[in-house]
Amino acid sequence: MMEIENILKKVKSGSIDIKDALDLLKDMPFEDLGFAKVDHHRKLRTGVPEVIYCPGKTSDQIEMIMTSMVSKGSNVLASRASPELYDTLKSNFQNLEYHKNARLMTLKINEVKLKGMVSVVSAGTADIPIAEEAAITAEMTGSTVQRIYDVGVAGIHRLLSTRKKLEQSNAVVVVAGMEGALGSVIGGLVSCPVIAVPTSVGYGASLNGIAALLAMLNSCAPNVTVVNIDNGFGAGYSASLINRQIVLAENLEAK
Amino acid sequence: MMEIENILKKVKSGSIDIKDALDLLKDMPFEDLGFAKVDHHRKLRTGVPEVIYCPGKTSDQIEMIMTSMVSKGSNVLASRASPELYDTLKSNFQNLEYHKNARLMTLKINEVKLKGMVSVVSAGTADIPIAEEAAITAEMTGSTVQRIYDVGVAGIHRLLSTRKKLEQSNAVVVVAGMEGALGSVIGGLVSCPVIAVPTSVGYGASLNGIAALLAMLNSCAPNVTVVNIDNGFGAGYSASLINRQIVLAENLEAK
Amino acid sequence: MMEIENILKKVKSGSIDIKDALDLLKDMPFEDLGFAKVDHHRKLRTGVPEVIYCPGKTSDQIEMIMTSMVSKGSNVLASRASPELYDTLKSNFQNLEYHKNARLMTLKINEVKLKGMVSVVSAGTADIPIAEEAAITAEMTGSTVQRIYDVGVAGIHRLLSTRKKLEQSNAVVVVAGMEGALGSVIGGLVSCPVIAVPTSVGYGASLNGIAALLAMLNSCAPNVTVVNIDNGFGAGYSASLINRQIVLAENLEAK
Amino acid sequence: MMEIENILKKVKSGSIDIKDALDLLKDMPFEDLGFAKVDHHRKLRTGVPEVIYCPGKTSDQIEMIMTSMVSKGSNVLASRASPELYDTLKSNFQNLEYHKNARLMTLKINEVKLKGMVSVVSAGTADIPIAEEAAITAEMTGSTVQRIYDVGVAGIHRLLSTRKKLEQSNAVVVVAGMEGALGSVIGGLVSCPVIAVPTSVGYGASLNGIAALLAMLNSCAPNVTVVNIDNGFGAGYSASLINRQIVLAENLEAK
Amino acid sequence: MMEIENILKKVKSGSIDIKDALDLLKDMPFEDLGFAKVDHHRKLRTGVPEVIYCPGKTSDQIEMIMTSMVSKGSNVLASRASPELYDTLKSNFQNLEYHKNARLMTLKINEVKLKGMVSVVSAGTADIPIAEEAAITAEMTGSTVQRIYDVGVAGIHRLLSTRKKLEQSNAVVVVAGMEGALGSVIGGLVSCPVIAVPTSVGYGASLNGIAALLAMLNSCAPNVTVVNIDNGFGAGYSASLINRQIVLAENLEAK
Amino acid sequence: MMEIENILKKVKSGSIDIKDALDLLKDMPFEDLGFAKVDHHRKLRTGVPEVIYCPGKTSDQIEMIMTSMVSKGSNVLASRASPELYDTLKSNFQNLEYHKNARLMTLKINEVKLKGMVSVVSAGTADIPIAEEAAITAEMTGSTVQRIYDVGVAGIHRLLSTRKKLEQSNAVVVVAGMEGALGSVIGGLVSCPVIAVPTSVGYGASLNGIAALLAMLNSCAPNVTVVNIDNGFGAGYSASLINRQIVLAENLEAK
Amino acid sequence: MMEIENILKKVKSGSIDIKDALDLLKDMPFEDLGFAKVDHHRKLRTGVPEVIYCPGKTSDQIEMIMTSMVSKGSNVLASRASPELYDTLKSNFQNLEYHKNARLMTLKINEVKLKGMVSVVSAGTADIPIAEEAAITAEMTGSTVQRIYDVGVAGIHRLLSTRKKLEQSNAVVVVAGMEGALGSVIGGLVSCPVIAVPTSVGYGASLNGIAALLAMLNSCAPNVTVVNIDNGFGAGYSASLINRQIVLAENLEAK
Amino acid sequence: MMEIENILKKVKSGSIDIKDALDLLKDMPFEDLGFAKVDHHRKLRTGVPEVIYCPGKTSDQIEMIMTSMVSKGSNVLASRASPELYDTLKSNFQNLEYHKNARLMTLKINEVKLKGMVSVVSAGTADIPIAEEAAITAEMTGSTVQRIYDVGVAGIHRLLSTRKKLEQSNAVVVVAGMEGALGSVIGGLVSCPVIAVPTSVGYGASLNGIAALLAMLNSCAPNVTVVNIDNGFGAGYSASLINRQIVLAENLEAK
Repeated sequence: MMEIENILKKVKSGSIDIKDALDLLKDMPFEDLGFAKVDHHRKLRTGVPEVIYCPGKTSDQIEMIMTSMVSKGSNVLASRASPELYDTLKSNFQNLEYHKNARLMTLKINEVKLKGMVSVVSAGTADIPIAEEAAITAEMTGSTVQRIYDVGVAGIHRLLSTRKKLEQSNAVVVVAGMEGALGSVIGGLVSCPVIAVPTSVGYGASLNGIAALLAMLNSCAPNVTVVNIDNGFGAGYSASLINRQIVLAENLEAK
Repeated sequence: MMEIENILKKVKSGSIDIKDALDLLKDMPFEDLGFAKVDHHRKLRTGVPEVIYCPGKTSDQIEMIMTSMVSKGSNVLASRASPELYDTLKSNFQNLEYHKNARLMTLKINEVKLKGMVSVVSAGTADIPIAEEAAITAEMTGSTVQRIYDVGVAGIHRLLSTRKKLEQSNAVVVVAGMEGALGSVIGGLVSCPVIAVPTSVGYGASLNGIAALLAMLNSCAPNVTVVNIDNGFGAGYSASLINRQIVLAENLEAK
Repeated sequence: MMEIENILKKVKSGSIDIKDALDLLKDMPFEDLGFAKVDHHRKLRTGVPEVIYCPGKTSDQIEMIMTSMVSKGSNVLASRASPELYDTLKSNFQNLEYHKNARLMTLKINEVKLKGMVSVVSAGTADIPIAEEAAITAEMTGSTVQRIYDVGVAGIHRLLSTRKKLEQSNAVVVVAGMEGALGSVIGGLVSCPVIAVPTSVGYGASLNGIAALLAMLNSCAPNVTVVNIDNGFGAGYSASLINRQIVLAENLEAK
Repeated sequence: MMEIENILKKVKSGSIDIKDALDLLKDMPFEDLGFAKVDHHRKLRTGVPEVIYCPGKTSDQIEMIMTSMVSKGSNVLASRASPELYDTLKSNFQNLEYHKNARLMTLKINEVKLKGMVSVVSAGTADIPIAEEAAITAEMTGSTVQRIYDVGVAGIHRLLSTRKKLEQSNAVVVVAGMEGALGSVIGGLVSCPVIAVPTSVGYGASLNGIAALLAMLNSCAPNVTVVNIDNGFGAGYSASLINRQIVLAENLEAK
Repeated sequence: MMEIENILKKVKSGSIDIKDALDLLKDMPFEDLGFAKVDHHRKLRTGVPEVIYCPGKTSDQIEMIMTSMVSKGSNVLASRASPELYDTLKSNFQNLEYHKNARLMTLKINEVKLKGMVSVVSAGTADIPIAEEAAITAEMTGSTVQRIYDVGVAGIHRLLSTRKKLEQSNAVVVVAGMEGALGSVIGGLVSCPVIAVPTSVGYGASLNGIAALLAMLNSCAPNVTVVNIDNGFGAGYSASLINRQIVLAENLEAK
Repeated sequence: MMEIENILKKVKSGSIDIKDALDLLKDMPFEDLGFAKVDHHRKLRTGVPEVIYCPGKTSDQIEMIMTSMVSKGSNVLASRASPELYDTLKSNFQNLEYHKNARLMTLKINEVKLKGMVSVVSAGTADIPIAEEAAITAEMTGSTVQRIYDVGVAGIHRLLSTRKKLEQSNAVVVVAGMEGALGSVIGGLVSCPVIAVPTSVGYGASLNGIAALLAMLNSCAPNVTVVNIDNGFGAGYSASLINRQIVLAENLEAK
Repeated sequence: MMEIENILKKVKSGSIDIKDALDLLKDMPFEDLGFAKVDHHRKLRTGVPEVIYCPGKTSDQIEMIMTSMVSKGSNVLASRASPELYDTLKSNFQNLEYHKNARLMTLKINEVKLKGMVSVVSAGTADIPIAEEAAITAEMTGSTVQRIYDVGVAGIHRLLSTRKKLEQSNAVVVVAGMEGALGSVIGGLVSCPVIAVPTSVGYGASLNGIAALLAMLNSCAPNVTVVNIDNGFGAGYSASLINRQIVLAENLEAK
Repeated sequence: MMEIENILKKVKSGSIDIKDALDLLKDMPFEDLGFAKVDHHRKLRTGVPEVIYCPGKTSDQIEMIMTSMVSKGSNVLASRASPELYDTLKSNFQNLEYHKNARLMTLKINEVKLKGMVSVVSAGTADIPIAEEAAITAEMTGSTVQRIYDVGVAGIHRLLSTRKKLEQSNAVVVVAGMEGALGSVIGGLVSCPVIAVPTSVGYGASLNGIAALLAMLNSCAPNVTVVNIDNGFGAGYSASLINRQIVLAENLEAK
């Protein structure tokens, strides 16, 4: 806003005339967009990492972006990072961590305080990498996470035995491939929002995750929303966002 | 043709008699097709109705087929029959019954004894017509049927409370639209074969039942097989066939 | 829990022996499921209507369900209700309202206090019925709703002029057909969760909403989750759930 | 059930009071699920191997699972196992066998008695690996298997010459890619249930098995049900289940 | 243009006469398009009707086209004609016939001599309209047609009993919906070209004929080619073309 | 079976002799399948190679099949053969040829006389391998082939300059990927049957040949039929079959 | 811009201070968007009608929009207008015209001068309504239009005879259903941009226009771009835009 | 042919001279195809490179084509060229350049003057290769290009800040994967034609670019047309064509 304020000051002082000010303002389209985020949202972002989606970027580009983020004091979360990328970058960034399963690189400049509760539930062993992507993303964005893995619907008792834990969540991420039925079952068990992540686990008529995606979109539980196939990052981010809004509301009132 | 020629020569020379020649010829490929189904299968078919798939046939054609079946003393099951078709035919066939929900017409010349146990389970109220198509088909083919309706996975406790009943089945038909998750859940609860029927119930990304079909084909329970969307008839027929084979085996040995 | 407690009492008193008690407990599978929802979730549901999905149910069935709900003192929300259904039922239920655009019937036994803020945004005029389904659902479940309609991306200035309003939301529902681009644009403008509803508005390659659905699932904004095509109800329900959790948290702490 | 019985004993003896017993029971959700499978089902499972689906599991995970199974005295069937996996594990498990074509590993702790009859039929040479997966699965689960390979419909006489053998089956598995027509033809030739397995054999418009899958789902024979593309395991398991139910029924009555 | 200029120069100089120049020009690319089909092809077309595809044309347009054709002495074949269209036109064209099942209108100015042999085979009763479209088209274009209907693959003996008749064909049209398996089976039974027509008969996963289309395209018999779903006209036309080429060859040599 | 029994009785009684009995039996349905193809078809097959589809077969299996064919004096055509397969087999079969582009192996025991005329037309350079597969297949089955390559529709004059050559064909194979438009254009230029082969040439919305396949199936020219994507073999075989039927008819009459 | 100017004046005059001015500017987000379109674009729009897409709007809404447009002196083009809509509105708007085929309503307040040249080409009679939608849209936006209808590729000479006319175009709209081949052929004949419109004309594998759409997207001619199925309006608009830019450039320089 | 014959007669009789005859013949349909593009189009092509689509061509074929082009004095643009191809050819062609990102090889024999303005806009970093393909193609065909990269819709302000630059374009190429929303947003911001290129960037429900393709085809902005997925070449070519027509028009009038 500095720039606009300066122009106004010059108008007031008469150092530029109105017509020139008008032209200057016209030429500054939109650069002030984003200046007006209200306070309670800004709080949400405190300590939230900046995010890099790695595919299609060279390691040089990623290094440059990370360096810039670090210089601003921001934590970094890089998704879909290959082991090779990590090997290339690790000597340049102290504390850079690689989460192999989840294909995430994280770099913590600031401590992240974990609050509230997000549950990340997965149907099968093969879904765990995507579940980890969701879980670590939620943790990096400030949420306490409980992992509940390998509770597919064909052995419903395994799932039901976790019901109490599930009920403590402010949001639940459900990760499942194949028939993707877990989303609906959990949607019926909890009262909070459920974010379903279809995975590409399966073969044949799983159509690389389309079967699970369609099943989740057709959930008969009204508290289920869906993200893209294998998008553990998006699910973890959204679930954590819901959780942090609640935590924030508690804290706001607690004051 | 050498073999046939040799047999004929032996018949002519009298070195084998006609009955033996006939048996030999029967055992050669193809010529006995359609007449030589072995006994234990024939038993399976006793009292089984002949089936008419109505779409694409005129009421005149259907009347003619039914008249022919009745004259052979066979019960009749006509699937996907419209109310108009029934209205046209009911005056011609005493005892013709119409099952509106299930779109089935049945005509019983012979009493059907219900044996064993087939369970027909449906997820939602809107799936009941297809479930009824399965249930009546199973009954018309000699199976006792228990109906367990409205036990969708989003309220898993409703389903679980029927577990004991489910365990008494020789085969289970599971009818579900939308996300089609019920097949996998029941597949995990019972030890017998489960035949899943996706229905076209739903909207949008249900793609007229494709979503449920794909989900069921990707079931993680190994005892689940699938039929076409809305094919209650085929599921009821196959489940009843499994059930009757078991009943038959029990009876065979009981003698 | 009454039943289990009674059994235990009888065990204690010796009026039944342990083996019989064990059998009784075995036969009560799961009926207590759902009894243990922790308090803070129960609060969420206070005043929340029970929901009826109308397609595939007869008017008699719906009347029966509504009568039962009313007798329990619950508000009622019936989705995808036809005008004919309303005409059939309106004489039986005083105060039954019909929202023609949204295809919703509502029946308020208890006053619903609107709190927090959910924004419902639609791209085009033709998307308004689904947007209204979302908005009324959110209101019936206790959320204040602001409607921001006809702000499609091809005239981006119309959308941008509503930015301030959008930023006041705890959750945003975005309703768009055709290219479905609005979800991503709004996802980038706000910090709260965005629930995107693809609509079947369009023709040709819109594939009855599949184009918009796919676009929304591929959103490059990480705070966007998606529901089924034309599922205004689900989006409104989930957005309202997020909003009420925040309101609840504020109130809990405020005490 | 030991735990529940102990609680009841303590209630009876007064060593805990009813309220505490109630709390304990509440906290034991579902762990007793599965204890009540009725006897005739339990028999079915005697000697049935435990099954591991290998993709997405590390060799360490698989070794651990197998060790646990072996320690319980269970046979093991591991599906979709790579040659590398077998090479890694073979030194640790005496008697571990690898069926290269079928991508199955088997480990027999207990002898498996083969009974009844399951036919496994394949259309072409390229379908044999999936057919073998079905056949070995059926054998590992206690069914006698007859293999009838390379009898595709374009040379119908080859198929017809096997009719007698087919008629001896309690269940038939039909494995076919490309146009998948074999399911319907065999469905019309036999009276028992037919389980059709579409394969991904083919190119172009076979769409990796979708063409065969759709053809099989549209079978005009009512005794055909379908499993996922290339799911020889599921078909063999279900066919064997049907067969064993019949064998069991014969044996039950034979006593 | 050099070549044309040279020819003109020679014409002017009289070194070639006009007829030869004309012939040379005809042999140059493009300018003779549409008039110079060589003789043996022209014979093929003698007596062949002109064809009108009716959808999207008004009855006025169709009347005009037919009047023009009649004035040229051509027989007329109008495909996908509605009963209403026929009712509108029948008073204007004596001898106009309507084939209701086949949705064809035919108008014979000249007698059509039927020669050779085309077989039209259909799987089910509901496929007959498309089969009739093929059969009448083949007849209108000069081929003797034998109809072999209701010989679906699930009752293979019905089909096999027609083998001798099939072998007399110069070309076979196979019409089948649902799983579309008939094409491959007949392809294996005959030595002549087979043209397969998938129909939209079926429901659910038949996808309005896509299942049958894909099955036919994947036929393992090498003598099978395919036309569009429900395109009885195209199949009858192509089969008749093959048949007439053979008849023509026989007649040419017979002279 | 009455009929067969009667024949046997007459044989025994001497009222018919063995040869006549044999003839009668041959004429009964089914038993003569596979040996009684009538003469004029048999002629068609004289000199026609036996065909092996290589994918999914081991080199050992293929060697065995080829050895058997050679021992019967048959030419061999092996499709979709890899260079590695050829390298493995070439030392065992003198005169084995490999057509790298077309992925065909051919082995000529008997000279193949080329007669009639089949045109093979391709749209682009990248379509040539499939075109060659068609051309060599047609040649191996006794048809003279003219190759007309690289005449795509975007340069329509190149195509039109070949019109005269096209008109000399008894059948035309059209090979095209991308938009697949060539089939319709050529269908309109010639009077003989056109067999269109969509290829997987292209990217993006070509969907691996689906775009070309659909275009060809929707051809507005009635003399176009279609085979599977990249199925040059099937198209060459069918076109050659049409051509040879005509050649045969000419020769039959010429005698 | 009045508002911003006023604020600046007040700043200059001191009647508001800088902080308040800043707040006012912040609250005026984007309302000036669009004021800065440079001159040569504004010229393009002179006389261009405002456009209403009718589906999903009530007749009251459309009347209101049209009244507003008329009051601003703008011509009106309403697309996908039903005859009923026209009947409702025609008494309210003098000079309102309805183009039944094209489903367009037009209202000319100002004369539209037709300049340059856009060709609209259609393949078949059934494509004419969409072609007319394109043609009238181009005319209403100021382009001279030549219509070239019924020149499908299966009769390539009809198309070629129009080549000279085509070459006079600044842009060509090609409208075709079924195989959609016309786009590529014309793309190769002209040097100007070609905009291809797939139509839903066809049946079966045309998939309601998807076949034509895919074909056009895969055009091997580099000057072809594509719009949505049946989107004659968009194609006409874009083609006219290209044409008017050229006309404008000519006129600019002519001055 | 009457007309041609008459012309020849007149030539012979001397009533017209050869040049006039030639002109008359040229004006008749077809014979002048390929040589008579009228002047104003020819101008467009001056300096435009010939284009080679590399996939499916051997390096020998490409070298031959390039040598031929160079010998005619034409610039060359080779698309989808691999680095290996460049390495093979670079020693043979001095000045051959390789644009690695864009997979383009260019060879400039003649200087290309850049005129007018085409904007190439990309949504994300991963879209840049396709954007570069478009940009370099536009430059090679004579258009000045401004690149505006990394302005995806989820950060709308980045895009809006480029509005002024965008408005200077004669045509805009928009390159975007994932949800493809950028096309519509830019379509609404500019008055000139927009050519949208969907890219295969993304995963899961992006379906290799189908999601972006469908979104772009459904654009609510009427000035957007679309090319195939990843077809940067086609978009750059068409945009440059539009731009050059305008530049040409300006120059024509300027004289």
